Amino acid sequence: MIRAIDHIGIAVKDLDESLATWLVLFPGVEVHRETVADQKVDVASFQVGGVRIELTAATDEDSPIAKFLAKRGEGIHHVAFAADAVNDELQRLEAGGIKLINSAAVPGAHDKLIGFLHPKSTGGVLMELCQDRPTAGAENAADA
Amino acid sequence: MIRAIDHIGIAVKDLDESLATWLVLFPGVEVHRETVADQKVDVASFQVGGVRIELTAATDEDSPIAKFLAKRGEGIHHVAFAADAVNDELQRLEAGGIKLINSAAVPGAHDKLIGFLHPKSTGGVLMELCQDRPTAGAENAADA
Repeated sequence: MIRAIDHIGIAVKDLDESLATWLVLFPGVEVHRETVADQKVDVASFQVGGVRIELTAATDEDSPIAKFLAKRGEGIHHVAFAADAVNDELQRLEAGGIKLINSAAVPGAHDKLIGFLHPKSTGGVLMELCQDRPTAGAENAADA
Repeated sequence: MIRAIDHIGIAVKDLDESLATWLVLFPGVEVHRETVADQKVDVASFQVGGVRIELTAATDEDSPIAKFLAKRGEGIHHVAFAADAVNDELQRLEAGGIKLINSAAVPGAHDKLIGFLHPKSTGGVLMELCQDRPTAGAENAADA
């Protein structure tokens, strides 16, 4: 089942400058910073209610975020939904006619399993499904 | 105070076609449909966790949504945050250097008071603040 919005990813040019603006809106939030080498991005994230806002800047011109910025400029990049079991949902959605970017879950930031849907089949909205990674003892079940 | 994400507004060309896709992701949600004559839009909305998804289609080529679709195509149009007092927040944000589209709250859909921030000063993200309209007895306080 897809339960709720987990986070909103926002593509920014300058992480510090963008964060300063968001902190005018949300003073005092606790900011988590992380570099995701795989995606070639620096991320600054914080919670607003139950949803995480993820400001994401490219660390390399090959980064997907750099390509997005070049094409569309700064703005909302994707919406991520929390799912109980990403692989089950990807299969269900594909059977329902939704095109996938990831046909199976891959590792993401915050130690989650994630999968992206293709925006061409979701009305221009890039959507991610994510779930907390099972702890060591439950790994086999998740791999199944 | 700005508390949480109230809704995400998504610009779509064909409301029924778009809704059919979202219902693959979220089968069984209760869909609310509404025409907002002021904005020249038809809206289909539903809850995902605590956040409302608002699919919005233009009913006229003069609609702000028609202009958005012509310029950017389908996709996420804005993010709305629930505030305790929109006018107070608009003043606070303007003092903090954020440009506003609405310098004071105006009536919105779902019987709310709303105000938009200018995306040029919020990194390309069109943001709305909204609050439930005070009930009749408390109206004077809100008008102050």
